[in-house]
Formats: sequence, C-alpha cells, structure tokens
Amino acid sequence: MQRVVDLDFESWVCPVPLRDTPTVVMGHGGGGVMSGELIEHLFLPAYGAAAAAELGDSAVLSIGGTRLAFSTDSFVVKPMFFPGGSIGDLAVNGTVNDLAMSGATPLFLSTAFILQEGTELSALGRIAEAMGTAAQVAGVRLVTGDTKVVDSASGDGVYINTAGIGVIADGVDIDPRRARPGDAVLISGDIGVHGVAVMSCREGLEFGTTVESDTAPLHGLVADMIATGADLHVLRDPTRGGVAASLNEIARASAVGIDLVERDLPVPQTVRDACSLLGLDPLQVANEGKLLAIVPPESADQVLEALQAHPLGRSARRIGTCVPDHPGMVVARTGLGGTRVIGLPIGEQLPRIC
Amino acid sequence: MQRVVDLDFESWVCPVPLRDTPTVVMGHGGGGVMSGELIEHLFLPAYGAAAAAELGDSAVLSIGGTRLAFSTDSFVVKPMFFPGGSIGDLAVNGTVNDLAMSGATPLFLSTAFILQEGTELSALGRIAEAMGTAAQVAGVRLVTGDTKVVDSASGDGVYINTAGIGVIADGVDIDPRRARPGDAVLISGDIGVHGVAVMSCREGLEFGTTVESDTAPLHGLVADMIATGADLHVLRDPTRGGVAASLNEIARASAVGIDLVERDLPVPQTVRDACSLLGLDPLQVANEGKLLAIVPPESADQVLEALQAHPLGRSARRIGTCVPDHPGMVVARTGLGGTRVIGLPIGEQLPRIC
Repeated sequence: MQRVVDLDFESWVCPVPLRDTPTVVMGHGGGGVMSGELIEHLFLPAYGAAAAAELGDSAVLSIGGTRLAFSTDSFVVKPMFFPGGSIGDLAVNGTVNDLAMSGATPLFLSTAFILQEGTELSALGRIAEAMGTAAQVAGVRLVTGDTKVVDSASGDGVYINTAGIGVIADGVDIDPRRARPGDAVLISGDIGVHGVAVMSCREGLEFGTTVESDTAPLHGLVADMIATGADLHVLRDPTRGGVAASLNEIARASAVGIDLVERDLPVPQTVRDACSLLGLDPLQVANEGKLLAIVPPESADQVLEALQAHPLGRSARRIGTCVPDHPGMVVARTGLGGTRVIGLPIGEQLPRIC
Repeated sequence: MQRVVDLDFESWVCPVPLRDTPTVVMGHGGGGVMSGELIEHLFLPAYGAAAAAELGDSAVLSIGGTRLAFSTDSFVVKPMFFPGGSIGDLAVNGTVNDLAMSGATPLFLSTAFILQEGTELSALGRIAEAMGTAAQVAGVRLVTGDTKVVDSASGDGVYINTAGIGVIADGVDIDPRRARPGDAVLISGDIGVHGVAVMSCREGLEFGTTVESDTAPLHGLVADMIATGADLHVLRDPTRGGVAASLNEIARASAVGIDLVERDLPVPQTVRDACSLLGLDPLQVANEGKLLAIVPPESADQVLEALQAHPLGRSARRIGTCVPDHPGMVVARTGLGGTRVIGLPIGEQLPRIC
C-alpha cells in the first residue's frame, strides 16, 4: 500500500507558542487577536508552500482570464433559530457577503452539513428551507453539497459550511490594503444588532422590544456602490469581532490610522442597553447585514447617497476618516473631546454567534 | 429592522416522511439509501428553485467560457490519526478526488475548521501540516479558510470542511449518466482498505499486519487516462458506501445494469478477514484512494494499461461490464455460477469513516 503523505506525526511543534495555552480555547474562534495568531503561527507555517500568502475571508483567483472570488465559512450559531433568522439564513448570507466584500457578484454556493444524531428532521427542514429562500433572495444557486452525521455526544444540532464562487467585474479593485489617508469610513446601518439578538435569545433577556438579527445579503448594496463609478478602496462586513476587529484589520493591512467620531456611531438604544447589561462593547459585537466602506474623500457623498437609496442602507452614515497618524490603530474621539483606542478584540466576547 | 427572509418556522413538514424516523440517525450520513432520501425528500424540496437539479458530489459550472468543477466535503473521521494518514490527508485528497472524478484539474481549496475547545494545538498542527503536504503532493493551493470553536460538549476534536475548484479541459465529458451497455467497469486497485484501516484502529483489532489507509490524490491517474484519448464515460471514487454505493448510483443515473465478476474483485486477504470478523461486506467499505472508471469497450485495454502504468493504479483491473438487462441494478456473478444482487447500502455500515 502506498503512503503518499508520510509525516512524522509525533514531531510537530508550534513554531511560535500560542498565547499560553496548549489547547484550543473559545477565543481561537472569535475573529480577534487569537484567531489571527492561529492563522499566522499555526496554519500558515503548517501549510507551508501550499498556502496562499493570506488565508483571508475570501480569495481572488484568476481562471481563464476571469477573476473569481472564492470563500468559505462554517456556522455553529447557538441557538439555531433566533429572532430575525436562523443558522440557515446566516450560512447563505454570510458567504454571499464575503464574496460581495471583494466586489464579486455571488453566483454559486456549496452547502455541507455536520448533523448531530437525534436532531429533529423538521428543524433541519426549516433550516434548509431558510437556506433556499435566502439563496433565492440573493440570486445564488446551491449547486453541490455533503452531509455527515456524528453521534449525539459529538455534535450540537446542525453545523453548516457554505463555500461560494462569485465573479469580479473588470475595473473593480477592492482590497483591505487599499485604504489611504483622507479616505472616508462609511457604515451601512446600525451596529451590533445580530450579536445582541442571539445573546438576548440565548440568555432569555428582554429589552422591551425584541431585537432581531440584521442578517441580509449585501451584494445589492455593493452593486449600487460600484454603479456610482467611485473607486471603492475597501469593503468589509463586520461579523465576528464587530466593527472593532474589521477596522483594525484594515488599518493594519493598509498601514493607515483610522479616526472614528464616537457620537456618529449608529448604535440603537436597545443594543446599547443590552451591551451595558452584558458587559459588551457594541463595537465588538457581530453584525450580519452591515458593511463598512472605505472610499476616497471625493466620492464619499456620492457613495453614501447610493447606500441610503438602498433598503438595506437607509441609515448609512459616515463614521470616520483614515489618517496618516497612528498607522495600524483605530482611535475614537469621545464626546468629551478625549480619545480612546479601539483595540482588536483578543478572544471571544460572544461565543457561537455565527 | 428589515427581515429579508421571513419564514413560518413552525409549519415545515417533510414532503415525504423519511423512513420511520423523526430525527437524524447515523445512516443519514452513510452515503447510501438514507443519504439519498435526505437529499431527495428534504434538501431538494426545501431549497426549492435555488437548488441545482442534482446536489451531487461535484457541480460543473460554466463561468466566462471556462468549465469549472466545484465540490465540497466535510470530514469527521474518528480517530483523527489512523494508520496511513489523518483527517488532514483525507480532507485534501477527498476534495481533490471529487474534482478529479469530473475530469477536472484541481487548483484551489478552501479549508474550514470546527474545533472542539480543549483540542491539543499540537494535534491541530500535525493535521494542518498533513494538509499542507497533501496539497503540495496534489499540486493545489489552500487559498481561503475559516475557523470556528465550539465548547467541549459540542464537538469532537477537529471537523474539517474543504471545498475545491478545478478546471475541466475542452472535450472532456465525464458524467454519471454516460454509462452505456457494453462499457467496461475498471477499478484502479484493492477494495476496502481505508475503511478497514480506520475500523481496525478504532476497535483495536489486529490482523497480523497493519492495514494502512489508501488515502491518495487521484487526479494524476485521471490525467493519464484522459491522455490516452479514450472517451471516458464515468469516473467515481468509491468512498462512503464503497464500490456498492458508487456502482448503484451510476447504474441508476445511466439506466444500465452492471454485471460484476466476483472473483475479479481485488479484495486483499487482510480486508477479507477483517470484514468477516466485523460482519461487513468489502463492497460497502470506504476507499479513499481508488477510482472506478466506466469506459467504452474498445478503449478498455488502453485505459487499463494507462492505469497500471501509474504508481497508484498498478493493481488496476477490469471487474465487470455494463449491460442492457436489469437497468439500475448491480449484480455479481459468484464463483458457483450463481448471481447475487449488490444493493445500495441503506444506512451507515461504518460511522465516521471519513
């Protein structure tokens, strides 16, 4: 029998020790510092020459002269159904959005399930139906799939992976490394809604009104922004780790500073109340239907108008500016004339939020 | 807050009751009858118009005039390390092989992890290293990824999803519906090795010699077969459900019968012994480095020679013929001159084998 891959499995040593822990902790899945360390210090060295230089949310590939975006995401949200959506909506919209954030038109999705033995088939059916509906709304086709089942002690209902393929039009060049000093930072709407919706539901909290997840496909918004003719520099959907993680990543990738004006951040009162109760920073809470756009100053108004004209971007606004100072760092100007540093979250503020 | 997808989550009823069970059972992940029912009676109706007509192992897409193969697979094998390989090898080779079975040259893979809190980082590192090595051997790049962490009660070490993209050359038309009466059925080597390797290791069984998994990337074999100029009709890697499941699916998709000659089936003695001890049928045991090829009779010898000239196909042989009789059914001629029907396995003979 031929062994094509022959490794000395006993000898693997992590090239750089990961933050004082010999085992996986929840923070490794949080989309913050620890997630970044896992990629940089474990996956990239282990993959070696086979890895792309960056293992980002989405890769841009050139095949037969066409530029494709390719993305993957797994979903383990708990509970599987929450106000405003389900794991099924998230699984479709999440990958649609990852593709859209590189300026691609999403076309095809794969759907792969890891099911826990004993999960109600009716729950699985409702989830699959949500996926079909979300795919139709987003205009993507579910073209290939896989189902695995694990015993009841080794799973938790339904885990879903979606991978997706989209096509990037000529002339579109959206990249986290393209933010420039002077660029405007825009957000398409309210911050922190998805995370609070799931947490409230999980913890049985009530805040007067029910907070519903903002899960939605954002490629329509992106298409409208591209149609303005503006040179969009960076797009990002601030999911795990929230606006704080996304802006920090962009600031580092582009080596610019980002200045936010705290009073311009659109945080709904319900989110503010919930975050205060739960000890969370709204800027670190996941969104599933919002995007950040970094655009040249001369295009800011025009792009903002395009966002506001779209049903999903009615509350869009400008929240800050890219600056040459403090490169790699995000700073918020507070109401009292002070400033505070908005750090990249270390670990997992809200486990299993998506 | 806008709800883009608004479903009545309470009303979902499975259009056709699935085999006397209201819940997911291990058999739904077995690649046999129950897996097929789940796709046909649950996923396809629930996805509705968003679904491709067949949710197969691999989809063929046309983008910008190029034909792409797109495939996804999740891996939950237990244990994660076994003689001859690990979940990391399987995750890369499995998707490489799914792409290769539509005649594609595999190019790009995504890697998505669902990690159980508490998993040793050194184990994850060894798995990732195996993936990097397997990707290099297969000539594919790992271009995008995702990591989620679930609490220790909700996972089991490492689950991996890989999705992949490959390019199909002009003139290649490999499709499970293309088997024709008279076609030869070839197999690239010994049957049942992977399943027995994992089961022996899991159950602590010994059979004199250690049986090692046959996990391997098969696109090189496929390229050599294509290079013969033969019109390859169908290719399939007989993983879950084994040769029995793959041949049954082909027989149904092409509406042909398949006749096997039992004494020509290459089942190693160790596999035979293990299967007899475990009460398994070698034809239903998973392979991870073998392919079935269905080719026109006039090309059979030429393709067989090409297989045998490749290191992974040295024991390739002809095992049967497609016939006009008993369409959709696979029949084996036994040594005693009798015949037996090789059914599509119902559920899961060997849970968590890949």
